[in-house]
Amino acid sequence: MQDALIRLTDYWAGRGCLVAQPMNTEVGAGTLNPATALRVLGPEPWRVAYVEPSVRPDDSRYGDNPNRLQTHTQFQVILKPEPGDAQEQYLGSLAALGVDLRAHDVRFVEDDWASPALGAWGLGWEVWLDGLEITQFTYFQQSGGLTLDPVSVEITYGMERILMALQGVSHFKDIAYAPGVTYGEAFGQAEYEMSRYYLDDADIATNRELFEAYAAEARRMLDARLPVPAHSYVLKCSHAFNVLDARGAIGTTERARAFARMRGLAHEVAALWVERRAELGHPLGDAAARPAAAAAGAPPDASSAGTFALEIGVEELPPGEVARTADHVAERLRDGLAAAGLLTDASSLETCATPRRIIVLVHGLEAREPDTEQVVKGPRLAAAYDASGEPTRALRGFAQGQGVAVSDVQRVTVSGGEYAGYVRKVVGRPAAEVLAALLPDIVTGLRAGKNMRWNAPGLSFARPIRWLLALLDEREVPFTVADLAAGRSTRVHRTSDSPRVDVPDAASLVGVLRGHGIEPVPSRRRTRVAEDAAALARSHDGTVDVAAEHALVEEIVNLVEEPVAVLGSFDGKYLELPEEILTTVMRKHQRYLPVRGPSNRLLPHFVTVANGECDHDAVRAGNEAVLRARYEDASFFFRQDLRRTPEQIKEGLGRLTFTERLGSMADRSSRIAALAADLAGRLDLTAQERATLARAAALAKFDLASSMVIELPSLAGTMAREYARRAGEAEGVALALHEMELPRSAGDALPATVAGAVLAAADRLDLLTGLFAVGSAPTGSSDPFGMRRAALALTAILRDVPRLAPVTVGDGLALAARHQPVTAAPDALAEAERFIARRLEQNLLDEGRAVNVVRAVLPLAGAPAHAARAAGDLAELLGSPRFERLTTALQRVLRIVPDAAGAGYDPALFTERAEGDLHEAFTRVKAELTARPSVPEFATAASALVAPIDAYFDDVMVMDEDPGVRANRLGLLAAIRDLAAPVLDWREIA
Amino acid sequence: MQDALIRLTDYWAGRGCLVAQPMNTEVGAGTLNPATALRVLGPEPWRVAYVEPSVRPDDSRYGDNPNRLQTHTQFQVILKPEPGDAQEQYLGSLAALGVDLRAHDVRFVEDDWASPALGAWGLGWEVWLDGLEITQFTYFQQSGGLTLDPVSVEITYGMERILMALQGVSHFKDIAYAPGVTYGEAFGQAEYEMSRYYLDDADIATNRELFEAYAAEARRMLDARLPVPAHSYVLKCSHAFNVLDARGAIGTTERARAFARMRGLAHEVAALWVERRAELGHPLGDAAARPAAAAAGAPPDASSAGTFALEIGVEELPPGEVARTADHVAERLRDGLAAAGLLTDASSLETCATPRRIIVLVHGLEAREPDTEQVVKGPRLAAAYDASGEPTRALRGFAQGQGVAVSDVQRVTVSGGEYAGYVRKVVGRPAAEVLAALLPDIVTGLRAGKNMRWNAPGLSFARPIRWLLALLDEREVPFTVADLAAGRSTRVHRTSDSPRVDVPDAASLVGVLRGHGIEPVPSRRRTRVAEDAAALARSHDGTVDVAAEHALVEEIVNLVEEPVAVLGSFDGKYLELPEEILTTVMRKHQRYLPVRGPSNRLLPHFVTVANGECDHDAVRAGNEAVLRARYEDASFFFRQDLRRTPEQIKEGLGRLTFTERLGSMADRSSRIAALAADLAGRLDLTAQERATLARAAALAKFDLASSMVIELPSLAGTMAREYARRAGEAEGVALALHEMELPRSAGDALPATVAGAVLAAADRLDLLTGLFAVGSAPTGSSDPFGMRRAALALTAILRDVPRLAPVTVGDGLALAARHQPVTAAPDALAEAERFIARRLEQNLLDEGRAVNVVRAVLPLAGAPAHAARAAGDLAELLGSPRFERLTTALQRVLRIVPDAAGAGYDPALFTERAEGDLHEAFTRVKAELTARPSVPEFATAASALVAPIDAYFDDVMVMDEDPGVRANRLGLLAAIRDLAAPVLDWREIA
Repeated sequence: MQDALIRLTDYWAGRGCLVAQPMNTEVGAGTLNPATALRVLGPEPWRVAYVEPSVRPDDSRYGDNPNRLQTHTQFQVILKPEPGDAQEQYLGSLAALGVDLRAHDVRFVEDDWASPALGAWGLGWEVWLDGLEITQFTYFQQSGGLTLDPVSVEITYGMERILMALQGVSHFKDIAYAPGVTYGEAFGQAEYEMSRYYLDDADIATNRELFEAYAAEARRMLDARLPVPAHSYVLKCSHAFNVLDARGAIGTTERARAFARMRGLAHEVAALWVERRAELGHPLGDAAARPAAAAAGAPPDASSAGTFALEIGVEELPPGEVARTADHVAERLRDGLAAAGLLTDASSLETCATPRRIIVLVHGLEAREPDTEQVVKGPRLAAAYDASGEPTRALRGFAQGQGVAVSDVQRVTVSGGEYAGYVRKVVGRPAAEVLAALLPDIVTGLRAGKNMRWNAPGLSFARPIRWLLALLDEREVPFTVADLAAGRSTRVHRTSDSPRVDVPDAASLVGVLRGHGIEPVPSRRRTRVAEDAAALARSHDGTVDVAAEHALVEEIVNLVEEPVAVLGSFDGKYLELPEEILTTVMRKHQRYLPVRGPSNRLLPHFVTVANGECDHDAVRAGNEAVLRARYEDASFFFRQDLRRTPEQIKEGLGRLTFTERLGSMADRSSRIAALAADLAGRLDLTAQERATLARAAALAKFDLASSMVIELPSLAGTMAREYARRAGEAEGVALALHEMELPRSAGDALPATVAGAVLAAADRLDLLTGLFAVGSAPTGSSDPFGMRRAALALTAILRDVPRLAPVTVGDGLALAARHQPVTAAPDALAEAERFIARRLEQNLLDEGRAVNVVRAVLPLAGAPAHAARAAGDLAELLGSPRFERLTTALQRVLRIVPDAAGAGYDPALFTERAEGDLHEAFTRVKAELTARPSVPEFATAASALVAPIDAYFDDVMVMDEDPGVRANRLGLLAAIRDLAAPVLDWREIA
Repeated sequence: MQDALIRLTDYWAGRGCLVAQPMNTEVGAGTLNPATALRVLGPEPWRVAYVEPSVRPDDSRYGDNPNRLQTHTQFQVILKPEPGDAQEQYLGSLAALGVDLRAHDVRFVEDDWASPALGAWGLGWEVWLDGLEITQFTYFQQSGGLTLDPVSVEITYGMERILMALQGVSHFKDIAYAPGVTYGEAFGQAEYEMSRYYLDDADIATNRELFEAYAAEARRMLDARLPVPAHSYVLKCSHAFNVLDARGAIGTTERARAFARMRGLAHEVAALWVERRAELGHPLGDAAARPAAAAAGAPPDASSAGTFALEIGVEELPPGEVARTADHVAERLRDGLAAAGLLTDASSLETCATPRRIIVLVHGLEAREPDTEQVVKGPRLAAAYDASGEPTRALRGFAQGQGVAVSDVQRVTVSGGEYAGYVRKVVGRPAAEVLAALLPDIVTGLRAGKNMRWNAPGLSFARPIRWLLALLDEREVPFTVADLAAGRSTRVHRTSDSPRVDVPDAASLVGVLRGHGIEPVPSRRRTRVAEDAAALARSHDGTVDVAAEHALVEEIVNLVEEPVAVLGSFDGKYLELPEEILTTVMRKHQRYLPVRGPSNRLLPHFVTVANGECDHDAVRAGNEAVLRARYEDASFFFRQDLRRTPEQIKEGLGRLTFTERLGSMADRSSRIAALAADLAGRLDLTAQERATLARAAALAKFDLASSMVIELPSLAGTMAREYARRAGEAEGVALALHEMELPRSAGDALPATVAGAVLAAADRLDLLTGLFAVGSAPTGSSDPFGMRRAALALTAILRDVPRLAPVTVGDGLALAARHQPVTAAPDALAEAERFIARRLEQNLLDEGRAVNVVRAVLPLAGAPAHAARAAGDLAELLGSPRFERLTTALQRVLRIVPDAAGAGYDPALFTERAEGDLHEAFTRVKAELTARPSVPEFATAASALVAPIDAYFDDVMVMDEDPGVRANRLGLLAAIRDLAAPVLDWREIA
C-alpha cells in the first residue's frame, strides 16, 4: 500500500504536481482539502497531488466489512487548467502502479458528482478496473457556488480498493500495508474504535455544541475576511454534522437546515478566497492564457464529390447521450446540406456512434451547390428611363455601382412593384466550402442534458470534445472550433500502440476503426452483445433474456466501443438471497447481465461486457471479486436482519427521524396504521381482508429500519415482504407490506390486494397532509421528501385500484389530518388537494388526453377514478354530432347564467311555451339520471334537453325587463347548469 | 521541499518503516500522532515514518518571521526498538537529502525532551548542521506516564530549516517548494490568515467551550474503553488550549490546571491502549526478543603485564557528564585494582574523555594478584586435641573436610579465640582475570545526572553505550555487558571511510585515535580551542577572552572530539543591539565564542568550533546564516519595542495573567510599587533615593511585556534597563529596574542600589505572600512559579544588602499581605515565613556551616542578615573554651527551666547567697547588653554569668519543696533564659 502511494506521488510529482499534505482536520474527501476546494477557484494555475485519509462516520463498520471503512485512503490529484489529456495521464498512473492496461478492462463509466454542502458539482466518470470502481474522475464545474474558470480535473483514487484488486485480497484488513505489516494489523484497532465512536458512543449533545461552535467561528472568520480559517471551520462543521448523522441524530428538516447553513458558509468562503487572491495579485499567476485557436486552411475544390465523413471525438459520453447526439448531428448536417442543395434523392446519411465518437457519413453528395440567380433591385422602372426611354441618371448610377453595363439591366418585379434591375448569376460553392462553413456551428451547438465546460472557450457539452475528423472523399475539410482543427486523424483504443490513426478517405473511416477493433455501429455492437452473452450462457445451460434486459443492453452498447463478453460466476450460496437483491446489484451497480436457467431461475453466473480485448481470466477474476464483495455485504445485512423479527426491526423506526415536527418514522408508521383503519371503515372489506390489513398496518414500513434497506433503499417493500414471509406472517400480510410501497414510479405496478392498496394510499396521504400542514410544500427545484412522486402514486392508486374508488382525495386528507401531531389548517388541506389535482392533470396530459378534455374533467379530480373515466368517455364522445349539439346547448346556458344565480324558479311565472317545454324536459331528464352519472349516461339522457334549450333561446327573451320574470328564467337555466356541473366543466370543451 | 520529503520517505521506507499519514486533527508535533504517541507503548515492534504539519499557534508571525511559522513541517521517524545504530541511519538520511557529511559540521548537541502535557520524556540531542538545529533525536523513555519497554528512537526533522539551509535562502517563503512554486506562493496566505486567527481573531469563549467539550468526549471515550478516539480528543483539547494560550487567555493557574487535566487524560489513554493491545494479543508481535547477550571468551594469562586500556564508547554524552564519568570510571577501576593488589607505587592511571568515549589507561599494572593466605577456622583448640595431644575426632573430621593432612593444621587465633585451623595459600589471579571480573560492574554501574534505558537490559546511563574496548597490552580482556562484548575495536568519526578501527595494543589506543583525527585528552582540546580561537580572532584584530568564557569553553571541549575552530562574521549593524542580547544568543543558543576588540568592545565576529575537519567556507556560511536569522529576529523585537515608551510597553502587562486569583502582571506591578513604598518607609533613604525608587516602582517589570523579553525571558531586567535608558529615564531608575530582577540564581550579583534592592525584595515578598495566601505552595516536584528561587533571592537580599537589614521577613510579609487582592490568613503568612527560613537554612548549610550552628541561628531567620552574622560568629566562637563554658552553663539553665515558666522573681525571697550573686551578675550583664546583641557581644558580656550560674547550681536546690521558693528560683533562671534566647538557640549547640 505505502509503495503504491509513493509510486503515485512520484508519478504525479514528475508531471509537475506540487505534493501537498492531508488536511489537519477530519474531512470526508480529498476534495474538501483547501488544496482542492479553494485552489480550483479563480484564475491561478495549480497542479497538486496528495494523500487524504477520508473520514466518513457513516461508513463505520467496526472493521468487519471487507470494503467499507470509516477512514479510507484517497489519493487526490488536481490539474488546473485541465490539460486535455488527463485520461491518458491517468492511465499512465495506473501503469505506474503496475496495472497491465491491455490485460484488464479499464472503463470510464458516467458518474457525475455534486456536493450540495459545498455548492460544488462536476461531470465525469468513475473508473472501473474489471468492474471495480477505483477512481472518481471529474471535470469540476462549480465550487462554493462559483463557476470555475479555468476548469480543473479532479482525479480521486480509492486506494484500498485498488490495492485489494492488485493484491488479490478480499478484505481490506489483508492488504499488505508495509513489508510484513497488514492493514488490519496496523489500523484494525483504530477502525474498530472509531466505528464505535461514530456509531455508538459519540455524545450527541456535545457534537451539536461543536457544530454550533464551529459554525460560529466560521462566521466570525468570514467577517474578519479570513477565508483560510473560515474554511477550516466549515470542514469541522461538516465533520460534526457527519458524526451526528452517523449517530442517527439528524432529521430530514434538520439536515436540510444544516446543509443550507454549511452551503451558505462554503459559498462565502469561496467568494472571499477569490477576492483575497485577487487582492494578493494572484501569486501563482493567471492560467487564463488559453490554448491558441487553431487555424484552418482553405477548403479544397473538386469537380466531383461522393462521400463525406464527420467524426466528432469525445471523452466517454454518458450512455444516454450517445444515440441522441448522433441523431442530432445527422439532422443538423442533413438540414444544412439540404439547404445548400448538396443532397439528391440518391444521397443517404449514415450515423454511427460509440461512447467516444459521433460519426455521420454522407453518401452521394453533390460536388457543388447548384448555381443560382439573384435579383438586384434598382430604381423604380418609372424613374429608370426618361420620357425618351433613355436611361436616367439614377439607372446609370445603379449600373455603375453594380459594375454592369446599362444594357444588362432588365425589368424586374419585386413584391408586386416594377423596377429596373439586374439578375446576377451566383455560382454554387464547392461542397467542401459549404461544409467548412456549416460544421463549426454544428460542433459549437452540441448540447446534452447536462453540459460542462473545459479548456476550450465557447464549447459546452456532456464531455470534452477532443478531436474532429472531416473528410470529403480523400480530402480534408478544414475547419476549426476553439483549439481544435479538423483533419484526417482519428483515435482508437488508448492502449493501442499508436492511439492516433490517419484515415485515407471518408469511405474507409468505418473500416479503419474496425481494423483497430472498434465497432462504430451500435446495432452491430448490440447484436454482438446479445449473441456473445447467449453463447456464454449456453455453455452453462443458461440463457440471457435480452428482451427483458433491454434497457441494460442499451446502456452496455453505449458503454463500450468493442464489446467483449466475459462470463463470470458467483458462489451458489448467494442464491439463497432474494433474487431482487442479486439482480439489483448486478444491473444497477455492475451492469452485468443475469443468467437464468430452466423456469427462469437465476443461475450463479453473469455476463459482463468489457471494452476491447483483454485477458479474460483476469477480467473474470476481477469482476467475480467485485460481485462477491457486494454479495457478501448483502448477505451480511440479510443475516443481520433475519436475526430479528419484523417487530424487533420495527423498533429501529423510532431512531429514524422523519421531520422535527412530524416525529420519527415510528410515529409515521402508527399514523399510517390508524389512517388505514379509517379508510377501511369507508370500504367494503371482508373479515379476512380486515385482519390482513390490521396486521400489515401494525408492521407498516418496518423494513426501513432493516440493514438491507438502509443500504439499498430501492429494496424497501421487497425486503418487508421477504422478512415477513420468513417470520411466518400470512402471505396476504407479506404482500400488503410490499404493495404499500407501490407504485414506485410512473408506470410501476399498482397494489393488487386491497390491504396493500389501503396502506399505500394511507402512506401517501399521511406524508402529504403532514408536510402541507407544517408548510413544507415543495418548491420549483427542491422536493426533498418526494411529495410530487407521492401525489402521483396516490392519484394512480385512487384512480386505478377499483376497490379504492369510494375514497376521495378530500376525504383522505381530512382523515389523515386527524392523526397529525400538528393542526392542519383548512387552507393547507385545500392546497394539498390542489397539489394532488395538478398531478392528475399532468398524468392525464401525459397519457395523451387533449388539454380541453383534461380541463373539462378537472372538477372531478377529487375522485381520480371518476375523473379518469370521464376523460376517456369525453374523448370518445367528442366527435359525435349529437354530443356536440348537447355541448353547444349547455354552453349557451352557461354563457348567460351568472355564476351567482340561484337555481330556483316557479313554473307559474312562465309566460312562454318554450319555458314550459324546457321545464318538462328538465324534470324528465333529472328523474332519469342517477346520483353521479357518467358522461355517456348524462349525454344520453340530457340529449333530450337540446331541442327544448334551442327553442327556449329562440323564443324566450331571458333578460326580460321585469326583474321577476328575468330571475325566474335564469333560475330555470341555473337548474340545468347545476344538473350538468358535476359531470364535466362544459365550458372547457372547445 | 517536496522532493526532500519524497527522498526521506523513500529512505526510511527502504529501512523497513511503515509510511503513515499526518494526523487528521491539529497537532503541535509529530510526536502527538498516535503513530508515535500510542505506538511507542507496549512491547510491539514498530517502525514508522511520516510527514507531520505541526501547528503551533504561539509561533504565529503572520508569515513575516523568516524562521517561524504557525504550521511547520516535521518529518517524523520512530524506530522501535531502538536499533543500536540510529545515529548512523540518520546520517545516511542526511546524505540521501544531498548533505555532504564531510564538508559540513553535523553535531549531536545535548537536548533532552519532555512534554508534561503528555507525561512523556526522553533523552537525546538536537542535531546541528553548521550550527542550525535541523533535527530532534530522542530516546523515548516515558509516554503517557508509562515507562517504555522497549525504548524507541524518535527522529524529528524540521523540514523548513533543513530546506532553507540546503537551498541557501534566508526566509521560509523563498524555499522552492515544488518546481516553479515557492513556499510563500503556495502557503503564504494560509500562514498569514491562520496567524491572524491564532493571535487576534480566535474567539476565546468559543475555544474555552471547545476545550471543555473535547475533554468531556475524551473522558467518555476512556470510560467506554476506546483509547483511539479518546486520544484524538486529547489532541483536540491540547490544540484548543494552544489557541487560547496564543490569544493570551491562559493564566498561570489555569495553565497548571489544564496541564494536569490533559496529563491525566493522556495517562489514562496510554494505560488503556496498553491494556487493549494486550487484549488483542499484540497484533504486531513482541519486540521483547532481546539481542542475545554477548558471550565472553576466557581471559588470557600472561606472566607480565604493563598497560591496560579501557574504552567505553557511547553516543554523544551531555558535556557536563564527560569529565565526571571519566573520573568515576577511573576511581572505580583504581579501587578495584588496588583491592586486588595489582597497583604498585609505580602504577599510574590516566583518563581521557570525549563526548563519545571514556578512556582509562593503567600503566605499570602487575601481571597477577599477589598470592595470599586464608585462615580456615576449625574446632576450638581445646576440642582439637585430647589430653594426650592427639587430634580429636573433631579435628580429624575438619582436616578431612578441608582435604588437608592433620599435620598441616596449626593453631590460629580468630577474634581473640584460639582454634585449630588451616592456612590456605591462595594463588593470585592473572590481571586479565581480575579485570574481566571487575569491568562488567563498572560499566553496569555507570550513572549520570539523568539516565536513560535503551535496548540493552540492565544498563542505564546518560546515553547508550555502544562499544567496549579492553586491552591488556596486546591482548583482549574478554567481558560482556548485556549485548556488548569487549574487544579491540574502537570507533572513529562516523564519516570516516572505516568508522571502526582495531587497536593493536593498549598503549597505542590514544595514538590510533589521534591518527584518525580524534583528540581524546580534554586539556589538549581545550588548548587547541583557545589557541585556534585566539589566532582566528587575531586575524581580525580581536581577542577571545577564554578566561571569561570559561564555562562555555568547557562545554565546547566536551561537545567535540576534534575541535576545528572556524571564524564567522555578522553584519556590523547588529552591534547596535545591546551587547547582552548578542552574547546571550551566541553563548546560549549557538555556543559561539564572542570576539572582542579594544576596550573589550564586541566585534562583529565569532568563533564556532566544529567537530572535525570540514569545508570551512561551508561551515562558516551556515553558521553565519543561523546567527543572522537569530539577530534578525532580535532586531525585529528590539525595534518593535523601541517604538513604544516604557509606559506604553507596560500597558501590555494587563494582558499577561499572573494567576486567576492574583490578577494580571499589571496588578502585580502595582502591588510591588505599593509595597516598595511601604518598605522604603522603614528605611533611611535620601530624597533622591526616594524619587528614584518611586519612578522605578511606577515602571516595575514593564519589560515583561516587551517583545524581546517575551522571546528571551532571561533578558528581563536587562531590557528594562536598556529601554529605560533609551527612553531618557534617570540612570538610577534604569539601574533599579535591572537590579530588581537580581539575583537571578544562587551566586548571581545582588542589587547595588537601595532602590533596586527595595524593589527586588518587594517583588519576591509579593510573589510569596500572594501565592501562600491562595494556597499555592510548591510541592515536592512542582514549583511552577519559582517560589523556591524567589525565597532564596529574598533571603540573599535581606541578608547581604546592608541597607535592607532593618527589614524582617515577617514585617515584609505582613506589609505585602495588605496589598493582596485576597486575604492572607495568619497561618498562611506563618507558613511563608517558615518556607523562607528553610531556604536560609539550606543556604547556610550549602555554605558549609555545621548543622548545629545553622540550627542554633534559625530562630533569627526572620532577620537573615542577623542570622547569617550569628552563624559566622558562632562558628568562630565554637572552639573557644570560654564560649563552651558559657554554652554549658546556659544549657544547664535551659534544661531545668520549663518552657512555660515566667521570668519573674523577687530578690526578697532569696535564701541563698548564690541566688543573690546570680541576680547581681544578671542585672549587670543585662544592663551592659544592647537591644540586639551579636553573639560575640553577648558571649563577652554573658561570660560574667558562667561562674554565678555554676555556683547557683552547686549551692541552690532549685526544685525546693516550697512552691513559692521554687517558683522564685525558676523565675531567675527563666530571666537568664530570656536574655539568651534572642541570641541563639543554645540548646542546638552540641
